[in-house]
Amino acid sequence: MSSFLSAEAAALAPYTPGEQPTDAQYLKLNTNENPFPPSPKVLKAISRAELLKLNLYSDPTCARLGDAIAKRYGLRNENVLTGNGSDEVLGFAFRAFCGAGKGVAFADITYGFYQAQTPLFGLDATRIPLREDFSLRVDDYMEFPGTIVIANPNAPTGMAVPRSDIQRLLEADPGRVVIVDEAYVDFGAESCVPLLFRYNNLLVVQTMSKSRSLAGGRVGFALGAAELIADLNRVKYSFNPYNVNRLSLIAGAAAVEDEPYFRSCCAAIVQAREWTAGELSNLGFAVLPSLTNFLFAKSDRISGGALYHKLKEDGILVRWFDADRIRDYVRITVGSMEQMETLIERLSQLLEES
Amino acid sequence: MSSFLSAEAAALAPYTPGEQPTDAQYLKLNTNENPFPPSPKVLKAISRAELLKLNLYSDPTCARLGDAIAKRYGLRNENVLTGNGSDEVLGFAFRAFCGAGKGVAFADITYGFYQAQTPLFGLDATRIPLREDFSLRVDDYMEFPGTIVIANPNAPTGMAVPRSDIQRLLEADPGRVVIVDEAYVDFGAESCVPLLFRYNNLLVVQTMSKSRSLAGGRVGFALGAAELIADLNRVKYSFNPYNVNRLSLIAGAAAVEDEPYFRSCCAAIVQAREWTAGELSNLGFAVLPSLTNFLFAKSDRISGGALYHKLKEDGILVRWFDADRIRDYVRITVGSMEQMETLIERLSQLLEES
Repeated sequence: MSSFLSAEAAALAPYTPGEQPTDAQYLKLNTNENPFPPSPKVLKAISRAELLKLNLYSDPTCARLGDAIAKRYGLRNENVLTGNGSDEVLGFAFRAFCGAGKGVAFADITYGFYQAQTPLFGLDATRIPLREDFSLRVDDYMEFPGTIVIANPNAPTGMAVPRSDIQRLLEADPGRVVIVDEAYVDFGAESCVPLLFRYNNLLVVQTMSKSRSLAGGRVGFALGAAELIADLNRVKYSFNPYNVNRLSLIAGAAAVEDEPYFRSCCAAIVQAREWTAGELSNLGFAVLPSLTNFLFAKSDRISGGALYHKLKEDGILVRWFDADRIRDYVRITVGSMEQMETLIERLSQLLEES
Repeated sequence: MSSFLSAEAAALAPYTPGEQPTDAQYLKLNTNENPFPPSPKVLKAISRAELLKLNLYSDPTCARLGDAIAKRYGLRNENVLTGNGSDEVLGFAFRAFCGAGKGVAFADITYGFYQAQTPLFGLDATRIPLREDFSLRVDDYMEFPGTIVIANPNAPTGMAVPRSDIQRLLEADPGRVVIVDEAYVDFGAESCVPLLFRYNNLLVVQTMSKSRSLAGGRVGFALGAAELIADLNRVKYSFNPYNVNRLSLIAGAAAVEDEPYFRSCCAAIVQAREWTAGELSNLGFAVLPSLTNFLFAKSDRISGGALYHKLKEDGILVRWFDADRIRDYVRITVGSMEQMETLIERLSQLLEES
């Protein structure tokens, strides 16, 4: 920290992203990336002709990408805001719907970025503990007077709540915005998108980083009533009007339009997840029920920290959170079947040796 | 605005970017884009192999791009922060170095985005009028107790202050950060980069949108003492850790490494600017002395608004700001010689007709 830092910035507790090593070849199962490359349509769309136009600004309204997303979800362009990854979209939402006297609530165990991002806008954040079994009970949120953020399915647990639970929350207080972060929804959970037609206090946030193989392209989006999206645009045009670059606009549109590829990738990952969960159980792991592209698991034979370090020595990266309640666990991204077989093989050896 | 909007977001006055029409072919001289495509090295660097890796997150530390920029400017990686365009970088700087009791000052006539962005963080912004002739006198800033932002050269006037003026500001109060926005510096003004070796309260912000033909790639960067850059990273990791996507990281590095192409594009634009300024004068325009890739000019035969509208009817887009002090002017991006010849030809006809 320099002596010039503002008090507000000094109070921040920046997020630590998962390791992105460039110095060695790891089997990377630590940041929930998709093991499959982006759709061939993405590769085709980023043509030489498009690269030659990089001297021109991107469309600040992101119209073509917004149209593609709207069409995919049966919505209109006015119901979509796209951003530089869903982290940026979440930032816009926190600024739009929270402030002095209007706090925000989220789970104690959830995507760590909420806790990092909310102080940026001086927000009062309330952390509501998950139950003992890591389940989220929406009843715990019923009386909260501010904005609510629910990652569904949740990270790093992988567990989901049914759509009907979110619906109860939306109905309990129509004057309160509920943000549902569906970063992982395409791997089997119930999306709240169908509720958008009935509730104007619902904002659904999704990303192309996981199910659409575009983590490196940084494309996230929010879906909601036109008025909520207009509010987000208000923030966007005060922060970064050209927030999505030309190539990501093109890549995102091509990805969302290749439904068969998307479905086959998701299906393969779900299949690999179920196989891996079974194998982990066979190895004595306790595995939380996941509807995502990762598994949250613990062994009573080796601590979470030791497992993380040993796997890293073996060239396999998983994510370990040295935090209360979840210190015993590791979060393992579900990759291809081949990658999962390598993982299980190494885990078997490792447990034998320990 | 929805009923859910926070008071803080309601108080925003979002920026209006220049028109980016997609429906017709205009000669676009309104957003200061470079008329030349990006370096051939950029096209080569965005290879099929790189596109196939879009399923993986970008490097949050932007190491490769930071190294390339550092090398170009004789600095170290720790002196560089890269962002999703310089707008994002400016946002990080405002949050890092301003806050309650630590306001920010900038000119009354300058890049309009400062005024749009500072309320996002609830900042107290002081606007210091340029002199009658649109020159900026640094003496007017000497006593200001907060952070200072100077666009140098300034937009939309195109006028620059000498480096020695900034140096006086830096020395007047070593406890105060001076942000010098050098978006247009490569077209002939004196950069403050050499001062970075002597002053730890200087932050230089640059962009690849203008001189490096990457407006659509969204790559901006800040240069400063390692402590200042660490402060910016504190904000970045609280807002969007993966803020630059994979392809922009690659494009930015390739662009900054192609010095000959950069120099030849800048030289061609400077030449076209001088020719165009002369022709505008011949047509009776008053033209401010520009060290940028645009010209700010007015005619006593036609109002700024009328000129903007008539040119648009003719398929030529320029920028007109309907604001005090500058309403009589239009801002004309300097394109290729061919584009400038078309512009001058149309202007001659238009003035004859009026």
